[in-house]
Amino acid sequence: MNIYLKNAIDQASILLNHDLQEVKDLILKKVASETTLIPDITQHIISSGGKRIRPIMLLLSSKMFGYKGEDDLLLAACVEFIHTATLLHDDVIDDNTSRRGVTVPNKIWGNKPAILVGDYLFTKSFELMVETKSLEILKLLSTTSSTLVQGELMQLSSINNINMTIEDYMKVIEAKTSSLFTSSVLSGAILAQTSEENKHNITQYAKLLGNSFQMLDDLIDYLETKEESGKNIGTDLYEQKVTIPIIVLAQLCNYSEKAFLTKIFNDGTMEEDYLQQVIQLLQKYNCAQHVKNIVEKNNIQALEYLNNIPFSNTYKDHLASMVKSF
Amino acid sequence: MNIYLKNAIDQASILLNHDLQEVKDLILKKVASETTLIPDITQHIISSGGKRIRPIMLLLSSKMFGYKGEDDLLLAACVEFIHTATLLHDDVIDDNTSRRGVTVPNKIWGNKPAILVGDYLFTKSFELMVETKSLEILKLLSTTSSTLVQGELMQLSSINNINMTIEDYMKVIEAKTSSLFTSSVLSGAILAQTSEENKHNITQYAKLLGNSFQMLDDLIDYLETKEESGKNIGTDLYEQKVTIPIIVLAQLCNYSEKAFLTKIFNDGTMEEDYLQQVIQLLQKYNCAQHVKNIVEKNNIQALEYLNNIPFSNTYKDHLASMVKSF
Repeated sequence: MNIYLKNAIDQASILLNHDLQEVKDLILKKVASETTLIPDITQHIISSGGKRIRPIMLLLSSKMFGYKGEDDLLLAACVEFIHTATLLHDDVIDDNTSRRGVTVPNKIWGNKPAILVGDYLFTKSFELMVETKSLEILKLLSTTSSTLVQGELMQLSSINNINMTIEDYMKVIEAKTSSLFTSSVLSGAILAQTSEENKHNITQYAKLLGNSFQMLDDLIDYLETKEESGKNIGTDLYEQKVTIPIIVLAQLCNYSEKAFLTKIFNDGTMEEDYLQQVIQLLQKYNCAQHVKNIVEKNNIQALEYLNNIPFSNTYKDHLASMVKSF
Repeated sequence: MNIYLKNAIDQASILLNHDLQEVKDLILKKVASETTLIPDITQHIISSGGKRIRPIMLLLSSKMFGYKGEDDLLLAACVEFIHTATLLHDDVIDDNTSRRGVTVPNKIWGNKPAILVGDYLFTKSFELMVETKSLEILKLLSTTSSTLVQGELMQLSSINNINMTIEDYMKVIEAKTSSLFTSSVLSGAILAQTSEENKHNITQYAKLLGNSFQMLDDLIDYLETKEESGKNIGTDLYEQKVTIPIIVLAQLCNYSEKAFLTKIFNDGTMEEDYLQQVIQLLQKYNCAQHVKNIVEKNNIQALEYLNNIPFSNTYKDHLASMVKSF
């Protein structure tokens, strides 16, 4: 995550401190179980320094629209459960060793518990949705869960495809990342019973923010050191996952460079200097700037949608600072 | 599955042929997706000779209680989705090669798609529940999904424990197997808006049937050949999973035999003749008969609960034949 977005979320966390503590307590209450694996793994992953961006966006949205009840806390826990479930399964699927500098559950407890606790958190997220008794929210969030998983499967199907178009990439990230951002803010809007137009605007805002978030995350994977991002550099390359910087590069580079890219994203073996060579190519064609330009355009649009919403309050300011901050 | 239960289900399948075809069509319609992995894997697992016992029980229950709508078809698809999702994840977790004589998806498409398509089917099951718009059913089935997963985790936590009590074993199988049997018939009863007493009786019936089903399945693992059960004999032993025949044996055998059991259920290595030695011990102490006695007692109780229900029709007869048949 880029440093400016981190700051915007930290500021919102201070504002929402009391609510976020309740969300955390609710999460830990919901995973209390005879089977100690469930609370142990959940506690580990919840305390591993995640920024809770989805619960924060949900709460900012519900409060911006004037919601005064407590179901937004339930749903904030719900979206965090969905997100955490996908993280647990992603870490097994990608055979990850660490996330944000912390060893992942599958490397501590093994793959079996990580898969099952992921399943458990999915099912708990549904229990939480049901507690709101809102069929509109149930329909939204159950569809979102299936969209998220479809996004992961779309990514898996296109993993080595160096000729992937930006449009196809956007489809994947909208499904696997932005859909949960969108549903988080929309759940808040539904609870607050705001107008259809407001729902539309907040949804578009969150979709664009989610897309920017994912594009920058994919860019950072080639730019930042482990100290900066908490992740190893080049993980997408090692997993042969084609993302936006590579798609841009593949469209700009010459024939022999493209042959090289095709080779390394399809070969089983990965030589040590491949990453450095790819980084040099990204620099040669100024790909980071190209990606940042797409993000910039995205963010301007996101702010426009947010500004269409006729409310002014501190919650809206915090939502605005999340896009301004890129 | 034992041959008599197979026959009872086959008979019910003939009766419900038209509905089951609609359930199958609904399942395939729900998994139609741009990502071909989803329909491919689902089609493979749905056509692998599963007996669809849960949808059948759901439909027999709704029809026994006089339900005339079509939401039972939705829910029949829903419980099959939940069951199929757990099968996909179980096969990854247990590193299975085949099920009912057919190669499992994780060995054809790999673990990643198997985990993700399992997730996808879970989320689709929730979408289907939401379509019924019944909060009572949503509460029931979302809780059941979480109970199922808890059962799997309880099993994982107690996997090598030769001193497991029958009570603890029953807790595990009630959670991992019988809970979905119970919720299937109860969903049918809720749709038909039958009395609380009827709901209680059909629930108890299904819990006991589910327990018998799982106990016999665990017994068959030490008795039947691959031709009879479609599974390799001794898989639970190779996975060091302590089940009812072993629990009974551990309570009856002498000190040195128990030391042997403890060793083989805890050792990393598994020698070829271990399975034969265990089978001989099971025969020496007549463990199969002990297990069958527990099942017999269970079944008598199940029938009593079913007979408390003041309906007489062909659907009830089919439910009765499922327990008579052991």
